[in-house]
Amino acid sequence: MTATLDLNADLGEGFGVWRLGDDDALLEVVSSANVACGAHAGDPSTMRAVCRRAAGLGVSVGAHVGYADLAGFGRRFLDVEPARLRDEVVAQIGVLQAFASLAGTAVAYVKPHGALFNAVVEHRGQAVAVAAGVAELCPGLPVLGLADSAWLDAAGEAGLHPVVEAYADRGYTPAGRLVPRSEPGALLTEPAAVVARVVELARTGTVAAVDGTRVAVAARSVCVHGDTPGAAALAGAVRTGLLAAGITIEAFARGRAPDSVSGRRGNL
Amino acid sequence: MTATLDLNADLGEGFGVWRLGDDDALLEVVSSANVACGAHAGDPSTMRAVCRRAAGLGVSVGAHVGYADLAGFGRRFLDVEPARLRDEVVAQIGVLQAFASLAGTAVAYVKPHGALFNAVVEHRGQAVAVAAGVAELCPGLPVLGLADSAWLDAAGEAGLHPVVEAYADRGYTPAGRLVPRSEPGALLTEPAAVVARVVELARTGTVAAVDGTRVAVAARSVCVHGDTPGAAALAGAVRTGLLAAGITIEAFARGRAPDSVSGRRGNL
Amino acid sequence: MTATLDLNADLGEGFGVWRLGDDDALLEVVSSANVACGAHAGDPSTMRAVCRRAAGLGVSVGAHVGYADLAGFGRRFLDVEPARLRDEVVAQIGVLQAFASLAGTAVAYVKPHGALFNAVVEHRGQAVAVAAGVAELCPGLPVLGLADSAWLDAAGEAGLHPVVEAYADRGYTPAGRLVPRSEPGALLTEPAAVVARVVELARTGTVAAVDGTRVAVAARSVCVHGDTPGAAALAGAVRTGLLAAGITIEAFARGRAPDSVSGRRGNL
Amino acid sequence: MTATLDLNADLGEGFGVWRLGDDDALLEVVSSANVACGAHAGDPSTMRAVCRRAAGLGVSVGAHVGYADLAGFGRRFLDVEPARLRDEVVAQIGVLQAFASLAGTAVAYVKPHGALFNAVVEHRGQAVAVAAGVAELCPGLPVLGLADSAWLDAAGEAGLHPVVEAYADRGYTPAGRLVPRSEPGALLTEPAAVVARVVELARTGTVAAVDGTRVAVAARSVCVHGDTPGAAALAGAVRTGLLAAGITIEAFARGRAPDSVSGRRGNL
Repeated sequence: MTATLDLNADLGEGFGVWRLGDDDALLEVVSSANVACGAHAGDPSTMRAVCRRAAGLGVSVGAHVGYADLAGFGRRFLDVEPARLRDEVVAQIGVLQAFASLAGTAVAYVKPHGALFNAVVEHRGQAVAVAAGVAELCPGLPVLGLADSAWLDAAGEAGLHPVVEAYADRGYTPAGRLVPRSEPGALLTEPAAVVARVVELARTGTVAAVDGTRVAVAARSVCVHGDTPGAAALAGAVRTGLLAAGITIEAFARGRAPDSVSGRRGNL
Repeated sequence: MTATLDLNADLGEGFGVWRLGDDDALLEVVSSANVACGAHAGDPSTMRAVCRRAAGLGVSVGAHVGYADLAGFGRRFLDVEPARLRDEVVAQIGVLQAFASLAGTAVAYVKPHGALFNAVVEHRGQAVAVAAGVAELCPGLPVLGLADSAWLDAAGEAGLHPVVEAYADRGYTPAGRLVPRSEPGALLTEPAAVVARVVELARTGTVAAVDGTRVAVAARSVCVHGDTPGAAALAGAVRTGLLAAGITIEAFARGRAPDSVSGRRGNL
Repeated sequence: MTATLDLNADLGEGFGVWRLGDDDALLEVVSSANVACGAHAGDPSTMRAVCRRAAGLGVSVGAHVGYADLAGFGRRFLDVEPARLRDEVVAQIGVLQAFASLAGTAVAYVKPHGALFNAVVEHRGQAVAVAAGVAELCPGLPVLGLADSAWLDAAGEAGLHPVVEAYADRGYTPAGRLVPRSEPGALLTEPAAVVARVVELARTGTVAAVDGTRVAVAARSVCVHGDTPGAAALAGAVRTGLLAAGITIEAFARGRAPDSVSGRRGNL
Repeated sequence: MTATLDLNADLGEGFGVWRLGDDDALLEVVSSANVACGAHAGDPSTMRAVCRRAAGLGVSVGAHVGYADLAGFGRRFLDVEPARLRDEVVAQIGVLQAFASLAGTAVAYVKPHGALFNAVVEHRGQAVAVAAGVAELCPGLPVLGLADSAWLDAAGEAGLHPVVEAYADRGYTPAGRLVPRSEPGALLTEPAAVVARVVELARTGTVAAVDGTRVAVAARSVCVHGDTPGAAALAGAVRTGLLAAGITIEAFARGRAPDSVSGRRGNL
């Protein structure tokens, strides 16, 4: 169905002296980098470095917005009121935008992180708030998320461009949903199976569900992980497999560098 | 010598549930708002509110960059390495820039806060780092500081526009320097004297030094304070006194709204 | 039914340069101080000052444990996993215990704050976690909470001493529950009515429910607020009213100073 | 001169999801664990785990107090005023004391971390403040530091027990000082040389200075590092070398478990 696919992964997830994952290795694998913006992880110098390297490799920079919870790495639901969440999203995109512009690019998309990613699948209030923050600052921006989620619905209503992602190592139900992690078939652990699954998706727009039936997954991007050694190697295998199958790996969105900086400048 | 003067003050210095100073009152007084950017104070919702109100009143928005030290309110010297300080400055301007753009304006200038303000008077390494961060993100931007400081020197070398500010309530030496706080005459506490001093400065470009001689102070802006009840009233008195004397209160720099948002947008 | 009552209020809720409420005024009113422990508010120097003043006035020091969320002042539910919440509680009591011991007293009780207070009314997992943290560090400690809550149930099961508090300015249903804030009669705003309600509770162990019937409220402590000017004055009125009615205001729990410091000391 | 030596290393230096160094490996090597207390690194669950494992292995727990600067890992000088620094120290020891007591032990000593360690070598104001905080909470506690430092002087004046540590991999001047890192001979990189140096120190109380002369180093403890893979292996080699040479590795201080918890308990 399509001869191109985007690979996205989380990057820049260190903080100060602490590192998480192998950013350099992943940047050689993906076409889109979900960059932490300082709320759940990330700091200014890390954002600068990741944006620069991503831009140099032609990897798109996305804002990986999350709850402002360093201690919990944004993995714990926080019942923040929508107006504040919207402002948090503006702030996080804003700071990444600064570093993206220094690297000659721009924030190309937004993807929620961790517990926020999970929350906005169904939490309409937070989904609308995140979409509002993105739309205010970057009208029409592409955003990444789970199919049939409150988040992508809200994004569409806010004039953003919803883009569906799939998961290389997750099982799918016949209805095209993810198999819950507590059930059999939730995770594909065999590297060859993961690679085959992604190649199949890129070629046919479908995957085999847990019951063997084929199900359509309209994903333009596939999320790979890199925060464990094995995961990074797996991500590389997915890339290699796609290229060997003749699939082009290409970002689903491009950040356009500002024509000039004049709009950002005060004058005397 | 000049019929116009800028008044600047620190705003948006709350954090979460906590407030500091009376932002609404000060915004009626000043022409330039030094807005905290989340490092020493300030949070996204506060930045949004201050930028919106400032823009509505025609008050210029400046980035009040400081050490990332909420617990110390940026008032303690932090020996951060220059490259990280530069990146902190980029991040802080970036986040404020986002909220300024939502308010239809732009960051018009940068002023260091607290211990960073004091450090860059003489700390060449940090002065150069702050200037580099500003210049990278906003080439040619006006910056505010103390006359004859390493900071304004570095700013000029980085292609920025150094602007000198004076202090309404501080005594000056015959050489045009501030009288150290430990010496007599360091602080003017009589409101009428403060007002007279600022009017005199606006009219003549000079002030009376502690020994009675006149000294030139090439300041286009005067810093007033608002974080104590008396200080806010004093700031109002300065404004009233200037207007009564026929002086125009006018921002020394203007943030120009982006012509369009297209440069900030990713596209599919 | 009882001639004594405890008044408790939240104190030490500043952070760094920021203040909230009038600690000095409230310490003259209450018999028990719920002291913020640095997670949702509070810092070491504030804890020291509040503990010292409380001890000097014979006011009991309680650990006001909350979610580690300065930006949200602990007022937003955080879905922290129970084991980490338990450890947070240990840490928060531990730090306050240090300052209490310097003041010659000890942490006399624990009360959850804000969104944690609300969560543990029904959230069994978090209630058990908070109780476990308290019981590990301070076996048998009194804890304060809402009647018929998961929190007081879990505290009792953990061997702690559950103590029920009432709310001076809240309406009660005939079943002895708080009237939800969205319904009529939820809040008593008339100072005289609030004072009369607390005196009535101290004398009879009952209050008048919204339908006029009397309902038993087995509260040994009444929570008063101080973070708004009017609230602090109201708290003072409650104290004056109780004393005028011959009620003794007395802490429900006392921190016992360590007999010696030897147990805390390393040795060569 | 002595048949016993203490080995100390920094542990518990993660934060939330982030890890640093191999705590489990180091705990098999050292006799004293400098545990981060949440200010520059460390979190409640990490403190609990390290204290429990250390107590189980008979390793003494020390409070590794540092500047409250997670973003800088406590490695940047912070010009905090002495009274606040003192209170920070109390808070950090207090929180670790809570977890040490849960593990059936107690904080056995204090050692400053990073930039604070460096600052108090000469910064008399901060040295006195740290010593005051320790002495208030734990009178007479042993503290670890650099010979001839303002810190150990201040500790002695505050009634604490100063203990000198040496550095396994640092060169010494004929005067017994560390060779500055910018000069030749500052670092021993050859594992065999490092091991020989520590064995020599344990046996004779002297080391060979860079000029070959012997110099007395009255150290009861040697600091080893573990935050790089090679360093952890080197630390293990030092342990093995000492044991092979018949040296006993033994903590210089022991935390004594509280006789009972009664002193920590409030009562109704």
